[in-house]
Amino acid sequence: MKLSDLAEIVEGNIEGNHNAEITGVGKIESAGSSEITFISNPLYEKFFETTNAGCVIVSREFEPRKKRSDISIMRVDDPYVSFIKLLEMFERNEDDELTGISDTSVIGENTELGEGIYIGELVNIGKNCRIGNGTKIMSNCSIDSGTLIGESCIIYPNVTLYKDSRIGNNVIIHSGTVIGSDGFGFAKNPDGTYKKIPQTGNVVIEDNVEIGSNTSIDRATIGSTVIGMGVKIDNQVQIAHNVEIGENTAIAAQVGIAGSTKIGRRCIIAGQSGIVGHLTICDDVIIGASVGVSKSITEPGIYTGYRARPHKEDLRNEIRLRNLETLEKRLKEIEAQIQKQK
Amino acid sequence: MKLSDLAEIVEGNIEGNHNAEITGVGKIESAGSSEITFISNPLYEKFFETTNAGCVIVSREFEPRKKRSDISIMRVDDPYVSFIKLLEMFERNEDDELTGISDTSVIGENTELGEGIYIGELVNIGKNCRIGNGTKIMSNCSIDSGTLIGESCIIYPNVTLYKDSRIGNNVIIHSGTVIGSDGFGFAKNPDGTYKKIPQTGNVVIEDNVEIGSNTSIDRATIGSTVIGMGVKIDNQVQIAHNVEIGENTAIAAQVGIAGSTKIGRRCIIAGQSGIVGHLTICDDVIIGASVGVSKSITEPGIYTGYRARPHKEDLRNEIRLRNLETLEKRLKEIEAQIQKQK
Amino acid sequence: MKLSDLAEIVEGNIEGNHNAEITGVGKIESAGSSEITFISNPLYEKFFETTNAGCVIVSREFEPRKKRSDISIMRVDDPYVSFIKLLEMFERNEDDELTGISDTSVIGENTELGEGIYIGELVNIGKNCRIGNGTKIMSNCSIDSGTLIGESCIIYPNVTLYKDSRIGNNVIIHSGTVIGSDGFGFAKNPDGTYKKIPQTGNVVIEDNVEIGSNTSIDRATIGSTVIGMGVKIDNQVQIAHNVEIGENTAIAAQVGIAGSTKIGRRCIIAGQSGIVGHLTICDDVIIGASVGVSKSITEPGIYTGYRARPHKEDLRNEIRLRNLETLEKRLKEIEAQIQKQK
Repeated sequence: MKLSDLAEIVEGNIEGNHNAEITGVGKIESAGSSEITFISNPLYEKFFETTNAGCVIVSREFEPRKKRSDISIMRVDDPYVSFIKLLEMFERNEDDELTGISDTSVIGENTELGEGIYIGELVNIGKNCRIGNGTKIMSNCSIDSGTLIGESCIIYPNVTLYKDSRIGNNVIIHSGTVIGSDGFGFAKNPDGTYKKIPQTGNVVIEDNVEIGSNTSIDRATIGSTVIGMGVKIDNQVQIAHNVEIGENTAIAAQVGIAGSTKIGRRCIIAGQSGIVGHLTICDDVIIGASVGVSKSITEPGIYTGYRARPHKEDLRNEIRLRNLETLEKRLKEIEAQIQKQK
Repeated sequence: MKLSDLAEIVEGNIEGNHNAEITGVGKIESAGSSEITFISNPLYEKFFETTNAGCVIVSREFEPRKKRSDISIMRVDDPYVSFIKLLEMFERNEDDELTGISDTSVIGENTELGEGIYIGELVNIGKNCRIGNGTKIMSNCSIDSGTLIGESCIIYPNVTLYKDSRIGNNVIIHSGTVIGSDGFGFAKNPDGTYKKIPQTGNVVIEDNVEIGSNTSIDRATIGSTVIGMGVKIDNQVQIAHNVEIGENTAIAAQVGIAGSTKIGRRCIIAGQSGIVGHLTICDDVIIGASVGVSKSITEPGIYTGYRARPHKEDLRNEIRLRNLETLEKRLKEIEAQIQKQK
Repeated sequence: MKLSDLAEIVEGNIEGNHNAEITGVGKIESAGSSEITFISNPLYEKFFETTNAGCVIVSREFEPRKKRSDISIMRVDDPYVSFIKLLEMFERNEDDELTGISDTSVIGENTELGEGIYIGELVNIGKNCRIGNGTKIMSNCSIDSGTLIGESCIIYPNVTLYKDSRIGNNVIIHSGTVIGSDGFGFAKNPDGTYKKIPQTGNVVIEDNVEIGSNTSIDRATIGSTVIGMGVKIDNQVQIAHNVEIGENTAIAAQVGIAGSTKIGRRCIIAGQSGIVGHLTICDDVIIGASVGVSKSITEPGIYTGYRARPHKEDLRNEIRLRNLETLEKRLKEIEAQIQKQK
């Protein structure tokens, strides 16, 4: 594609060769002469001098420390956004072309299949399921009976959906993820053994959700565990029974959310954090990485620390902790002075 | 079923319509008029005023703030226990009816299959295995050679059992879980590379164990990694080689237990905690959430904190930490006073 | 095998019965009279008095507190290394004999298969892949199109390799692991919803890498996520998009490494630690268990603590924390004295 065509797509101004042929996108450190790249983060400006890219997308204001006549630049309002646009355009996803139902898959009785769907090799779909138009289910997945999946979903290989799961439209689920396993519910018997509490509910995943690899979402004891519209969940996240996650909340890798906790809308939970059960986290809360939350949060804001607290408070305390040495010295001095006075 | 029949099952006293027809159980917030629900936790008493349930199971002493003539109540000794009883009764598990061996599964030479078993679609069972009576193995599981599985087990889809695993009776293993992968054992060579130490042992899982989804239990280097009778393990738990877990211990999600550590009986380990290798944790220890245990524990009790310590001690210290600000202020005051005295 | 033959293999000196028949290796606590065991850690010396092993491998200097005439000992330079040698020798791995391509596997168009390979039951391999000589792919794996796997690899059951993965020679990947799932990359829209950033890169795994069970390694946004030669990764590790891990680094279970972070060579990262994105960790860094790393590390050494710092500093601070009680008491005393002076 000509550079001038790309400029039209992103509403950019070219400085250099309008007719340069661009065949793909690349990282500024490694892009070749037929690739286009970008500078958004100032930390990457240093690479402008050395990049072999055919063209670099930069901001309207960008001033290279060293001019280069051998490469083109393209000025846009937001280089990152423009770059993503081109990334999407150049990405030819072969998976998009997949359709049909493989001979080696097994489809249960009374299961309805939509149009334009793809069922990969060695997939098992139970009875009484429904798969919406345009949905793709990759190889070695197990979809148990009574599961309903919406339109235009992608279920990657080796995913397990337990019975009666409800999956919306445009949902992406990555490999190894398990939806609808039993919640961890036991009642203690007098002799110290445990009695299993039946987990009779299910999991409901609303539209436009993406879930990473090896994540676990347990079914509800009664009712539903609910993942709200537009929620994004990373890899190895644990979501216990009866949890509810509000719309457009993002949850990073290895986070754990214990039973019956409700998370608000537009929250961000960073990696490895844990939230104990039966709490309520309000809308627009940001929880840092490796944070332990053991009380409900009722005010939007940023929370950090081994025991979650408002970020500013946590920072102040962290500084105090680091100053314990000084505190001790000051105390010693006072003690010495008092000793002298005697 | 008539409410009076349910009352007999849970030895309850009805106040209201003995003949009400009850078709299932529900959550107090969402149950309908043909469903029965319960109040055990006082936090849920407020829902008594608004619930649409046909009947609410309550304690002998429960006093509603507002009487309701439109719904029935049933008084019992322990509402939670009674509710679970009814939950079990109403749960009709379709999986209970599954039997037979699917055509698409592969069974190795010399493998013995018990009576009334179910082998789902696309399952691979190696040679020299034994599957006990009434056990169900769901779709896409891989059971490697020499594995023995007891009676009345349920192995959910996409589970992997490595060779020579020993699984007792009444064991439940959820999807994505891996039993018997190699322990993480390497010896460092002088040049900085690692040499693999053969992991020649296996995993032994005793009767009545339940294991959640995406959990990993590594085989022993020599001997066995042992999960004792009645142990309950949640999702995404990591159990390293040669670990031994005592009877009726419960381990919540995302806990990690490093190599050769021995955990006692009736312990409870809350979510995301980690226990380093080669330790011994005695019986009846409760470890809080996100706790790091780096020393053996020889006294029963509750342990918490980033570096595990007895809970009371940890709480006192936490309060001191939160008072660091006050401490500093007091110190400043003293310094000011001493300054004045000069 | 005769004990004298084993002595030759490990260059050991026998004290006892040179002709004793040894059929395998065992743990000192449980080995039988035809098995050989070892003492390396002094903590295990106490078992010398009670072991039923036929022979115990000990150091040149070992002095039993109580002589035993009923068992043999074998003196060597390094009992652990010698024991591993014998462990390897006695291990007869049935998997070594596996070859052939099972009827129930599915191989895509244009995929090249090397010599002496094994493709297990119910495996799906996409099109345009290449599997090197002697590589074994166990049951129920999904290998997506365009993936290249080197020679002498073992891919255990239920592994997923996304498209275009590059796997070197002598790589071992355990069950449930997912290589090449999409990185967690989203751009926030003005209305609070997220837009997916295409993840167009791949994962490159170099020679001699071993990866545990249920681990996730995401593909790069552009370019490659790279796992360097000889790296050892344990179970349930999360490696985000565009991460690079240097040669011979070892990463223990449940560690999480966020996007674009670069880890040096010969590092050791203990269990459950987390490293935030876009950092650089230099060569020869040791990170303790459950450590949070939020800044780049430029000096080799040991780092520990909830917020990573040099280990000695962390230890000193931990002691200060534990002494907060004393600090408070000293402060009270001073306040009392000042009060008296008034």
